[in-house]
Amino acid sequence: MNTVTLQEETPALADWTFSVKRSALQDMLAEASRPGVLSLALGLPAPELFPSADYMRATAHVISNDPRALQYSPPFQPLKSQIVELMAQRGVECTEREIFLTAGAQQGLSLLTRLLLNQGGTILTEELTYTGFQQAVQPLQPKILTVPTDIETGMDVNAVEDLLAAGERPALIYAVTNGHNPVGVSMSANKRAHLAELARYYRVPVIEDDPYGFLFYEGAPPPPLRSHSGRWILHVGSFSKILAPALRVGWLVVPERLIPHLSIIKESSDIDTSTLTQRAISRYLEEDHLPAHVTKLRCEYGARRDAMLRALDEHFPRGARWHKPSGGVFVWVKLPPGINAERLLKIALETERVAFLPGSAFSVDGRGDAANCLRLNFSNSAPERITEGITRLGRVLSRM
Amino acid sequence: MNTVTLQEETPALADWTFSVKRSALQDMLAEASRPGVLSLALGLPAPELFPSADYMRATAHVISNDPRALQYSPPFQPLKSQIVELMAQRGVECTEREIFLTAGAQQGLSLLTRLLLNQGGTILTEELTYTGFQQAVQPLQPKILTVPTDIETGMDVNAVEDLLAAGERPALIYAVTNGHNPVGVSMSANKRAHLAELARYYRVPVIEDDPYGFLFYEGAPPPPLRSHSGRWILHVGSFSKILAPALRVGWLVVPERLIPHLSIIKESSDIDTSTLTQRAISRYLEEDHLPAHVTKLRCEYGARRDAMLRALDEHFPRGARWHKPSGGVFVWVKLPPGINAERLLKIALETERVAFLPGSAFSVDGRGDAANCLRLNFSNSAPERITEGITRLGRVLSRM
Repeated sequence: MNTVTLQEETPALADWTFSVKRSALQDMLAEASRPGVLSLALGLPAPELFPSADYMRATAHVISNDPRALQYSPPFQPLKSQIVELMAQRGVECTEREIFLTAGAQQGLSLLTRLLLNQGGTILTEELTYTGFQQAVQPLQPKILTVPTDIETGMDVNAVEDLLAAGERPALIYAVTNGHNPVGVSMSANKRAHLAELARYYRVPVIEDDPYGFLFYEGAPPPPLRSHSGRWILHVGSFSKILAPALRVGWLVVPERLIPHLSIIKESSDIDTSTLTQRAISRYLEEDHLPAHVTKLRCEYGARRDAMLRALDEHFPRGARWHKPSGGVFVWVKLPPGINAERLLKIALETERVAFLPGSAFSVDGRGDAANCLRLNFSNSAPERITEGITRLGRVLSRM
Repeated sequence: MNTVTLQEETPALADWTFSVKRSALQDMLAEASRPGVLSLALGLPAPELFPSADYMRATAHVISNDPRALQYSPPFQPLKSQIVELMAQRGVECTEREIFLTAGAQQGLSLLTRLLLNQGGTILTEELTYTGFQQAVQPLQPKILTVPTDIETGMDVNAVEDLLAAGERPALIYAVTNGHNPVGVSMSANKRAHLAELARYYRVPVIEDDPYGFLFYEGAPPPPLRSHSGRWILHVGSFSKILAPALRVGWLVVPERLIPHLSIIKESSDIDTSTLTQRAISRYLEEDHLPAHVTKLRCEYGARRDAMLRALDEHFPRGARWHKPSGGVFVWVKLPPGINAERLLKIALETERVAFLPGSAFSVDGRGDAANCLRLNFSNSAPERITEGITRLGRVLSRM
């Protein structure tokens, strides 16, 4: 055999891997978790608010009383019924037969994109959008159509209509209706109705990614897109942000006809969602801990948001702009033109040990003009840490 | 808009979905779990042997002592070190940098196939093989090369060599080295060495799927393929069969260079593997419960295997053949020619309320001549239930 380099001496990878870069979020997870860094970078919930004791009791109850709690099993029907009830509180009518349990919202996105999208197919999303969605579609190397996002009313639905009216027929439209990631905005009621009407009229499914729909600070947002159409809106929900990410349980609300197809992809991906966790969450919900817990989250996250907005007012330069988000966990800041947010991050980490995510991390193929934007998270730090972090960022900005 | 049927009034699906049938195992999971059915169908572990109390204590310890136990997190390094130690006990030298944590072995297969295989690429496996692997590759619509399986020595590695020598270069070879699913056989030491040598020489990676490697009843099997090559063997391990499936934690042992690529696919699939579960398993292992637990499983499953073999001797017709499996959880039975196992299953369910999986369920595109074969599981039923199940099946066979 010939002499070959070590690089060649390991398996060849599928073609699509060459077009993929490691996500900025993943790199940042490592960077921001270093000791001493004050991180406003990631969309993490507050660990000190996790319902640890109640969830532990629910888990202990299930393990002690359910001999099949640690076995493989079909999806747990009582949990589906409880999700139907949660969706009803949000203004969505659906049945257990339309609920599909997932290992978190990201898996929901991954399953839906694999279900709907052909290799090289077309999708429609916003210029600035959740990186996890971009990663989920990457292996299918789609053509990506984009529309802008208005910082006060959300996705530019008129631009969506223009594309569809011009004859585009994407395999799916991706939208984050509440607490948009990264822009923080929640979509107005009129736009929701309009987008759902477009989905119906042009027969294009919309993936409504809604991990933050329960987290609102100015009264409940308008009902989800799914309240407008049970056939064309594919709703993605999650317990990660209202209970805890480590549970890895979320759900889809989709037309019943899609469930057997999703089951096949799910089974081939990871067989099933943890039986124990499904049943422990169900027990937690049955004990009715969730309403008080979510109220507490809204109160605490609302206070953190307000702390961030006050600190921005005080410490950020004139000419920087942001919008008060009514829900979710992010504030999107547009700095004065000419300030590069990636450069700001580098300096901020070096000189002030503070982290955020530059807007460019969310840009689809460089679109969206986000070079001077930053995404700031307010859920993962106590108010005084937020104030400290924004103060430090303000110091860096004052020197740029 | 025109009047359309309801069928048309939901989203269009990706092309590959039309070539997919729901797996026999998934249908059977529903059928076999009906009350009153004595099922030898699925490869489920014994729920009464789950280490529930010890695992519960480990979970409680982690939740009480680790404030980040319910958060997103990078893979837990101590668990990687413990897996390195487990692999060392099996005769495999590897480092933490070669370990990749997954949400179970099925996810390991799914990630590896997506990493290695192009749409329409070529793979090589056995004529009769694990359905979960077939499902994992289905969306990529590969060309599938197959070789037979010898019931006493495992995969026909000479046939693998013939294909490679003739110029075939599959993107991957898939092999189950211990307690083969569905044939029950463990691969001989000579064949392991030969297959690993072929992988190295022809530079084709082998996915070594090894969920049953710790479950042996006649002394330890030869070391895994991975002991012969750290570059060309991609080893898939799991806690599902030695602790519990509901934990959804497994691992890969792969060349370090593949880890960043796998991280990207994993992140886009489900972000991360449950932090809580990773840490609870690590705690369980730290408390050193596993050796005694696995010894107990070997003892109990060995007794169940023996009960099945005795009952087969007593109740199955002359002309039926089977091999005593030295590990795993399955016995493969070849009935006299002319007896159709699918028909047998139908009658057995109707008249005797007993279930198994017909060999045809594992056949790749109808290959492997398994119409008169059945896969019987012995891990999920107590010895007296196994005897009862085989007795009932014997009654059905005596009437056919």
